[in-house]
Amino acid sequence: MEHAHLRLDRPSAPTAKLEAFLSAHTSETPFVAIDLDIVAERYHALAEALPQADVFYAVKANPARPILDLLVAAGSKFDVASRHEVQMVLDAGAEPSRISFGNTIKKARDIAWAYEQGVRLFAFDAEEELSKLTEHAPGATVFCRVLCDGSGADWPLSRKFGCEPEEAARLVVLAARAGHPVGVSFHVGSQQRDLTAWDRALAEVAYVADALHDGGHRLAVINVGGGFPGRYQEAMPPIAAYGQAISQALADRMPTYVDNPVLVIAEPGRYLVADAGVLQTEVVLVSRKSELDERRWVYLDCGKFGGLAETMDEAIRYRMRTPHDGGIDGPVTLAGPTCDSADVLYEKTDYRLPLALTSGDRVELLSCGAYTTTYSAVGFNGFAPLREHFV
Amino acid sequence: MEHAHLRLDRPSAPTAKLEAFLSAHTSETPFVAIDLDIVAERYHALAEALPQADVFYAVKANPARPILDLLVAAGSKFDVASRHEVQMVLDAGAEPSRISFGNTIKKARDIAWAYEQGVRLFAFDAEEELSKLTEHAPGATVFCRVLCDGSGADWPLSRKFGCEPEEAARLVVLAARAGHPVGVSFHVGSQQRDLTAWDRALAEVAYVADALHDGGHRLAVINVGGGFPGRYQEAMPPIAAYGQAISQALADRMPTYVDNPVLVIAEPGRYLVADAGVLQTEVVLVSRKSELDERRWVYLDCGKFGGLAETMDEAIRYRMRTPHDGGIDGPVTLAGPTCDSADVLYEKTDYRLPLALTSGDRVELLSCGAYTTTYSAVGFNGFAPLREHFV
Repeated sequence: MEHAHLRLDRPSAPTAKLEAFLSAHTSETPFVAIDLDIVAERYHALAEALPQADVFYAVKANPARPILDLLVAAGSKFDVASRHEVQMVLDAGAEPSRISFGNTIKKARDIAWAYEQGVRLFAFDAEEELSKLTEHAPGATVFCRVLCDGSGADWPLSRKFGCEPEEAARLVVLAARAGHPVGVSFHVGSQQRDLTAWDRALAEVAYVADALHDGGHRLAVINVGGGFPGRYQEAMPPIAAYGQAISQALADRMPTYVDNPVLVIAEPGRYLVADAGVLQTEVVLVSRKSELDERRWVYLDCGKFGGLAETMDEAIRYRMRTPHDGGIDGPVTLAGPTCDSADVLYEKTDYRLPLALTSGDRVELLSCGAYTTTYSAVGFNGFAPLREHFV
Repeated sequence: MEHAHLRLDRPSAPTAKLEAFLSAHTSETPFVAIDLDIVAERYHALAEALPQADVFYAVKANPARPILDLLVAAGSKFDVASRHEVQMVLDAGAEPSRISFGNTIKKARDIAWAYEQGVRLFAFDAEEELSKLTEHAPGATVFCRVLCDGSGADWPLSRKFGCEPEEAARLVVLAARAGHPVGVSFHVGSQQRDLTAWDRALAEVAYVADALHDGGHRLAVINVGGGFPGRYQEAMPPIAAYGQAISQALADRMPTYVDNPVLVIAEPGRYLVADAGVLQTEVVLVSRKSELDERRWVYLDCGKFGGLAETMDEAIRYRMRTPHDGGIDGPVTLAGPTCDSADVLYEKTDYRLPLALTSGDRVELLSCGAYTTTYSAVGFNGFAPLREHFV
């Protein structure tokens, strides 16, 4: 559901600093160049838009050390997916109290290790996981993830994370009885364009909170997840509109018995880093499958296994620039450089690129700072992982 | 189209050597363990089944040095996808004359570099690529890839590689005029179960050969590609049946004017290495989304971004073993350990696993020697790339 009356954020061009780096053409392609100033600006914009929440950066979006350093200094907290991500955040100088182990799928020994390091905030969505937490992280704050429908989101949400609200209600009571301060979390789906999604999810949270209240326990955490957008092909609502919608939903849905202070958590990943990055790639080949085909195939030196995994099902549609923009264009299918026939980026989405485009030209994909470098394959077809530069 | 009258190969169990390594449980999961004896056995089996062809191992299937060393010693030739794969094969001691640069998408500077190393066999499927070859690899043998329909194959074949036969006919004549010995190639799709696919493709090759003949040129290479199977859930024809079908199709379809000796190339990847490997993984969590759900979710420590990329669209369906096999089982959805909701392995395929399965159990995926280790992400969610051991 789109909000036609909402002012939409129009995509902006990369910063002057980024443009200078990109036009130098001194770095071998493919690479992502990141402007750290944009990361800082986004962190503060979200903190301002949602003042009642603590911002936990979803490290998986881009765990590069310069980004972690910047966010540690800015006062951010961190949502981590694995033992190694805990270590990276600690190495960047954050206290363990600023870490949430947000993956609902954790080995018992990784929970124990994180707890030893001082981590005291953990996600779960199943009884088996709660048992591991009670055994290996006694007394830690735990939050149960409820399933969300995810409609309105661009990146597919499966039923992989979370449990049904009835099951969550049962589990949070078990957790409270086992001595954990407890909370509830959800995720409305990545690149969420429907601002009412949070209201629907918070209605589920209220249902779970009721069960907790009925059992005589207190709700300690509400985790409103991520879903804050990067700027791809489609215009999206501005961050202030997200803040307003979530604040309003919290006010509307939270029962009056919910004690303050409740820790409200927001977990932006994409929003903080996507627009900070530009991916520069080289055209390796432009071809037609038959002489009269109108549609050309454009093969880039970065593909689905080289960092552009989010083109899966053409879910994320990056904006592109070429040296010939403004010239006559025509329809294209875009693909990566590997011998894998699944390494096609865009086939159904209507991309058009200049007819003058040829091998050796540099093409830029905008808003590539999130979910690119670490998705990159370790060496598929002998191609090196995606490089990253900071400006 | 299946051949009901054909004897099908039933999957075999891992070798005693592999079993001993796996049961030791001394290596941290996830990992792939490879029995090199199986690779050697498969190389010889294919060479015997298709005696008129030179075997070019598709390095991308698994470029590990012990595999390359073994195949160099066995006399194999090599199909490579990139400059780095050329280097790996040369490092393993193969002469450059044993290398085919089979990727139709190559940078001009990579062609020039490979030519300098002595590589004299290159693929192409477009006029722009042919121009690069004529400029940077003068006089080298080049083969043009024609599009194939790919029906009967388990791994999706897009239109990414190859051109229409009419276009191929035009391009091979151009290539011959530019001084290249020329050939034709095709690929019937990975894990091809329909043995008539080669006959259909070779009819296209004959069409292109006719154009070449009409222009007064000789056909120097016929590349029958890959498609030879690994042993996953479905039984497949034995390799001898592939050899017979291809030999018969060559005899039926090649015009009598085709001079001998024509270099016949086969490019097995999966067939040589898939069944040589077992992937051992640990169960991280078993859960139900609601208390009464019959279907459980089983989360493994290896997922779609950790080496099991070929589960994309559930195309490749691995056989699995657990420590509780034989006990009562129930339906499961299988997923990987990352916080990515797209990291689900099997949701639609009817997998059933024992009810006794729990966190910490080791689960084994069979025939994981191909297209796993190098597909693995460099560090997505902080998880290390898939390890590999050789026995």
